[in-house]
Amino acid sequence: MVEFHAARLDNTFHALADPTRRAMLKSLSVHERSVGELAAPFQMSLAAASKHIKVLEKAGLVRREVKGRTHVCRLDAKPLSDVRDWLRYYERFWSERLDVLEALLREDTSAPPAPPRGKGRTR
Amino acid sequence: MVEFHAARLDNTFHALADPTRRAMLKSLSVHERSVGELAAPFQMSLAAASKHIKVLEKAGLVRREVKGRTHVCRLDAKPLSDVRDWLRYYERFWSERLDVLEALLREDTSAPPAPPRGKGRTR
Repeated sequence: MVEFHAARLDNTFHALADPTRRAMLKSLSVHERSVGELAAPFQMSLAAASKHIKVLEKAGLVRREVKGRTHVCRLDAKPLSDVRDWLRYYERFWSERLDVLEALLREDTSAPPAPPRGKGRTR
Repeated sequence: MVEFHAARLDNTFHALADPTRRAMLKSLSVHERSVGELAAPFQMSLAAASKHIKVLEKAGLVRREVKGRTHVCRLDAKPLSDVRDWLRYYERFWSERLDVLEALLREDTSAPPAPPRGKGRTR
């Protein structure tokens, strides 16, 4: 079960590690698209775009439905919620960083102002 | 700026797409470790483990400090908070899935019970 989950995370992270594939997901978040529509904005062959779509499908991020001659692609965000769940454990670490930064800023603003220069001379 | 951010996300997602590297991050979340300590639980050469650590360093997830002869590795969770920020846009999509599921469940429990079989015959 753990290994299966790990393999799924591998596929999802791998799918997300490419700007074209992330742009395809964004495009599908607006509307379902045919393979041709999905490939159109990118300067690459249909074969290259198709490879990217297959990586997204393997990760379960894209579902493809054949309607006659057209392959319609849809976003499935479920694997992204698994990534969010995986990230939760680490949340404390970046929160701690922010806490330290906040404490430093507070220290800085609550510290008494430095004595004016040459104060000793006025006595 | 956007391209720089995209390249950083590429590196982070690529670093996370491997179970050994994710296990190394988990280990560093408990305590800082030398390269040897970090490699020890995995059945691989020190050279192979070192390659994984370099991928994590490239993504900014691990910071390495040289203390005499020892290289001490520490977790830096900042790139993970960037991933969380990237995920936020997609949150609505898995929330929508949950809303639909919840609506279906409600419909199911609030629907009146089906009439008993053979009711017509008792009249």
